[in-house]
Amino acid sequence: MDMSSAINTGWMLTATVAVTLMVPGLALYYGGLSRTKNILNTMIIVLSGFAVTAVLWVLYGYGLTLGNSIGGAGLLGNPDGLFGIQSLLGQETPEGAVPAILIAVFQLIFAGLTVAIIGGAVEGRMKFSAWLVFAGIWATLVYFPVAHWVFAFDSGDGSVIGGFIANKLKAVDFAGGTAVHMNAGVAALVLALFLGKRRDFPNVGRPGNLPIALVGAGLLMVGWYGFNGGSSGGINDSAGVALTNTLIAACTGLIGWLIVERATRKVATSLGAISGIIAGLVAITPAAASVSPLSALVIGLFGGAIAFWALGLKEKLGYDDALDAVAIHMFPGIFGTLAIGFLADPSSPTGETGIFYGGGFHLLGIQALAVAIVFVYTFVVTGIIAFAIKKTIGLRVPDSVESAGLDRTLHAETAYDFDDIRS
Amino acid sequence: MDMSSAINTGWMLTATVAVTLMVPGLALYYGGLSRTKNILNTMIIVLSGFAVTAVLWVLYGYGLTLGNSIGGAGLLGNPDGLFGIQSLLGQETPEGAVPAILIAVFQLIFAGLTVAIIGGAVEGRMKFSAWLVFAGIWATLVYFPVAHWVFAFDSGDGSVIGGFIANKLKAVDFAGGTAVHMNAGVAALVLALFLGKRRDFPNVGRPGNLPIALVGAGLLMVGWYGFNGGSSGGINDSAGVALTNTLIAACTGLIGWLIVERATRKVATSLGAISGIIAGLVAITPAAASVSPLSALVIGLFGGAIAFWALGLKEKLGYDDALDAVAIHMFPGIFGTLAIGFLADPSSPTGETGIFYGGGFHLLGIQALAVAIVFVYTFVVTGIIAFAIKKTIGLRVPDSVESAGLDRTLHAETAYDFDDIRS
Amino acid sequence: MDMSSAINTGWMLTATVAVTLMVPGLALYYGGLSRTKNILNTMIIVLSGFAVTAVLWVLYGYGLTLGNSIGGAGLLGNPDGLFGIQSLLGQETPEGAVPAILIAVFQLIFAGLTVAIIGGAVEGRMKFSAWLVFAGIWATLVYFPVAHWVFAFDSGDGSVIGGFIANKLKAVDFAGGTAVHMNAGVAALVLALFLGKRRDFPNVGRPGNLPIALVGAGLLMVGWYGFNGGSSGGINDSAGVALTNTLIAACTGLIGWLIVERATRKVATSLGAISGIIAGLVAITPAAASVSPLSALVIGLFGGAIAFWALGLKEKLGYDDALDAVAIHMFPGIFGTLAIGFLADPSSPTGETGIFYGGGFHLLGIQALAVAIVFVYTFVVTGIIAFAIKKTIGLRVPDSVESAGLDRTLHAETAYDFDDIRS
Repeated sequence: MDMSSAINTGWMLTATVAVTLMVPGLALYYGGLSRTKNILNTMIIVLSGFAVTAVLWVLYGYGLTLGNSIGGAGLLGNPDGLFGIQSLLGQETPEGAVPAILIAVFQLIFAGLTVAIIGGAVEGRMKFSAWLVFAGIWATLVYFPVAHWVFAFDSGDGSVIGGFIANKLKAVDFAGGTAVHMNAGVAALVLALFLGKRRDFPNVGRPGNLPIALVGAGLLMVGWYGFNGGSSGGINDSAGVALTNTLIAACTGLIGWLIVERATRKVATSLGAISGIIAGLVAITPAAASVSPLSALVIGLFGGAIAFWALGLKEKLGYDDALDAVAIHMFPGIFGTLAIGFLADPSSPTGETGIFYGGGFHLLGIQALAVAIVFVYTFVVTGIIAFAIKKTIGLRVPDSVESAGLDRTLHAETAYDFDDIRS
Repeated sequence: MDMSSAINTGWMLTATVAVTLMVPGLALYYGGLSRTKNILNTMIIVLSGFAVTAVLWVLYGYGLTLGNSIGGAGLLGNPDGLFGIQSLLGQETPEGAVPAILIAVFQLIFAGLTVAIIGGAVEGRMKFSAWLVFAGIWATLVYFPVAHWVFAFDSGDGSVIGGFIANKLKAVDFAGGTAVHMNAGVAALVLALFLGKRRDFPNVGRPGNLPIALVGAGLLMVGWYGFNGGSSGGINDSAGVALTNTLIAACTGLIGWLIVERATRKVATSLGAISGIIAGLVAITPAAASVSPLSALVIGLFGGAIAFWALGLKEKLGYDDALDAVAIHMFPGIFGTLAIGFLADPSSPTGETGIFYGGGFHLLGIQALAVAIVFVYTFVVTGIIAFAIKKTIGLRVPDSVESAGLDRTLHAETAYDFDDIRS
Repeated sequence: MDMSSAINTGWMLTATVAVTLMVPGLALYYGGLSRTKNILNTMIIVLSGFAVTAVLWVLYGYGLTLGNSIGGAGLLGNPDGLFGIQSLLGQETPEGAVPAILIAVFQLIFAGLTVAIIGGAVEGRMKFSAWLVFAGIWATLVYFPVAHWVFAFDSGDGSVIGGFIANKLKAVDFAGGTAVHMNAGVAALVLALFLGKRRDFPNVGRPGNLPIALVGAGLLMVGWYGFNGGSSGGINDSAGVALTNTLIAACTGLIGWLIVERATRKVATSLGAISGIIAGLVAITPAAASVSPLSALVIGLFGGAIAFWALGLKEKLGYDDALDAVAIHMFPGIFGTLAIGFLADPSSPTGETGIFYGGGFHLLGIQALAVAIVFVYTFVVTGIIAFAIKKTIGLRVPDSVESAGLDRTLHAETAYDFDDIRS
């Protein structure tokens, strides 16, 4: 490996370490927000959804996502020769590049996390077997293609063709506003609709363990540096700018949520503080290397506020997105992707020019089109998958199981045993 | 970016990732030590104090701290042209240097953490609005100037003038014994005095969740590598030595605390173990690149022991520093800063010579002077701020709110809901 | 430091940061699995075992482990001139190398963690003083020599001679299948035998706090990247491959455990999910840079399954390995070390050839011999240490203390105080 490669590899190794914090982070964030009787089930859903996706990624997902586009169409990668990512072992690394196997594992984590985010919608009522089947099919039919569209770039020498959103439409999505957050959020919405509401919705009780949710949010926040920072692909100006904007948006996401919550409900909550942080992080994800720090401040602020507003839709529209994957991932993900059309700063690392910098409406149109395409595809295909599972093995546990809680019934466990210090 | 820049940037990116662990770390550490009725309030205080400071940093704090010293006086940076750190975007990085925007975000985290540490003093009785106002004013009037004094170095070519403690007094404070830990600890002491004791002091009950406090302490410990290691500014001998000394002092901080606790109270506690770790880390912070591993071992040992001893002052002197920001940050911070005067090793990366290495009393005098200046300034200005808030919007919640707990009353939440698994 | 050194140093700094996550990770993992009355004791055991080992490492452990082999015999390093690792400060770094002091602190963490892992065997019944004494003696008589055998490589120019397993036997143990996991697991087995069973074994009650155990498992998983990835010693193909294989094995460890658990006990548990992750990580540790991704997938799968199967031995054979250090560290550690003999891929970074790749039985024989040597040495010497402590200060607390729980009796604490939100 030449020196330039080694330098870039160093940061991608680090980013891979960091982004993995999001795996336990998400399990703990969702777990803490669950009712106590379902906290362990929620954690297993996150971990097992990630693990199943990881195995499929190794087997063929890498090929479908980052393989040479089949027929050059930009719709799906060719898994040929990439089974088990075996051929990446010992492969020569081109000058200045990062070893392909390291990119493969970095992108594996994106795939696994996207699937796991959907798990936020299903708290307390989904069959475990149905979840595992859903995770595997959804990764295959939705995530791998969409990630190909958005994350697979044509190689410099034209020998490898990537996805159509990244290369033909040329939409800007730095780290996954569409492919990750909106994608997972739309799937969560559809799955919540097919799954139906929890029996006691909307009076579902309170989060079981908010300090554990904060542990999760904290790990997510730090892991997000790897997510956004690592999307630079190496050491360059993007990485530092992405980190800066990511942290700023996390902070103003908190502030934005608390301001609106305080204004409308007369109270600022700790749940709002951590939800706002995550919403701000989602909103900045696609834009992290395309906007200035002041714009990141604004994007985070609105990201938090929009997510708070979106919470109210659950009851109005009647879908039971239990842990708010829709409000916190779908809406801020869309907002951040569109915000690039307005706020993209030509002096930023990616160099696009948004409307507020005199760039005209072209970029916004592209961004909106990318959002629309992913939205429709994910909505429809997720619906078909959910419908098929519902009609075959079934999506939902019996009422008695739901009422007793999934930890005790599905996993023969309870989260805590405090009895031995009470006496 | 040239290769040397890229190498240094890689480590500063990593250090930024690591140091951010301290944000949830501090929220969880303080939260776990709070009484259960106030745990969420404590967590919001840490997170919101950090977020408010972050926004001010972006707007003008960076300029006040790291801008060219106004009039070359070394007292305050000039925020001119640095509003919103906008001008750092796309700025050319000099050969071998780290992008200015990355230094800006790394130092942002120091600012936010320093403010958040103060929050340890106010558990269970401070108005949330008063805290937010205090955080913003204190960051502006105390942290930004003091950090300018200590952390702003003159540029090599003399075009940018830094702070007087770093450049004229030439005191050694590698990562913030004065500017961060002593600074926050003194402010915590003053704020505790103005705020008054909790109603039931000193019989305030026990920490609500020690395992959560350990989660926090663990994240703080790992994040401290970024704090001390990143203060090297890049890849050089300082970074490795700082990491080594940091870990050693954390370990002997634990041992020092437990030995004294065991000797005087006949018991070694888990609270002591984690408090000792943090105290050892605070003590080594200013000295991390100036002493040998054996000296780090000794500094940690005394840091832990001193913090334990300082605990006893609360009751004797009658200030209610609820979560021990004074004992654990102020005293070990002062100790570590002065210890450099004795233990600085000429073969260490920073190269100063302490008394024990034949260096005479000069260095100790400088260190003591730096401590005295920061102590007096912070004590007085924090007092004025606390007094002003007390006389205007008020610092303290009503007794009924204090008694019921701040989570329920101020935030309409409780930390846990375990009811659904009891039946 | 030249550029190549700086690049390698950057990754070793990062790996050191990451691997330190395993310290709180292990404390929380074991703590969460303990019964609530002993959770704090378990956490102190991990932290204090680590801290004691760290101090001994600084004083003489580094020399015993990584010093020039005494008499060139490959049995023990020479601590001469390495007291307090003082001489490493300011030592010139050879071209392309990593500063010796950084290697020292990275390896310190391995030593401390190995000792701490043993703490999983002793939950709820060991005297705290006996643990501290055991930790110090075991580190000295077992860990330092064994780590010398396995981790001390001859220097390129032959001026420094390392351990016999690494250099004469040439067994492959990338990051410590023998020296760390099997070593700790065997010691846990022996210590559990000398300590005796808990009074209520095998009806010992349930884990006290599974979400906290998940926090720990998550930090362990991310920290493991530093453990395995940092064992590359710098930026090279090993690092990326090690990360990839590590993550894959963690995922299939979970899957392997849950499949067997489901098949035999009709239920998949969250405890199984996190135990499987750790078991998969242990199994891949020695093999991380020697096998292909598909082999990592298989090693993780079997690692998880084997650990589940090994759980059953406790009751059958009657040793009370309370938190399953034997099942999760010893068995998968042995399995992973032997699996190299079958699965080593010549196109992997370490380049050995296993039986399945046409390499014959030679490598397997070497691996088995390394396992046997470490097993016998550790078994015997740990037995002598445990026997000596039992006959002098005693290993075990009185029954009344065991029954009341160690937190209350030994540490005058309880983990939680939830009373103030109940009213």
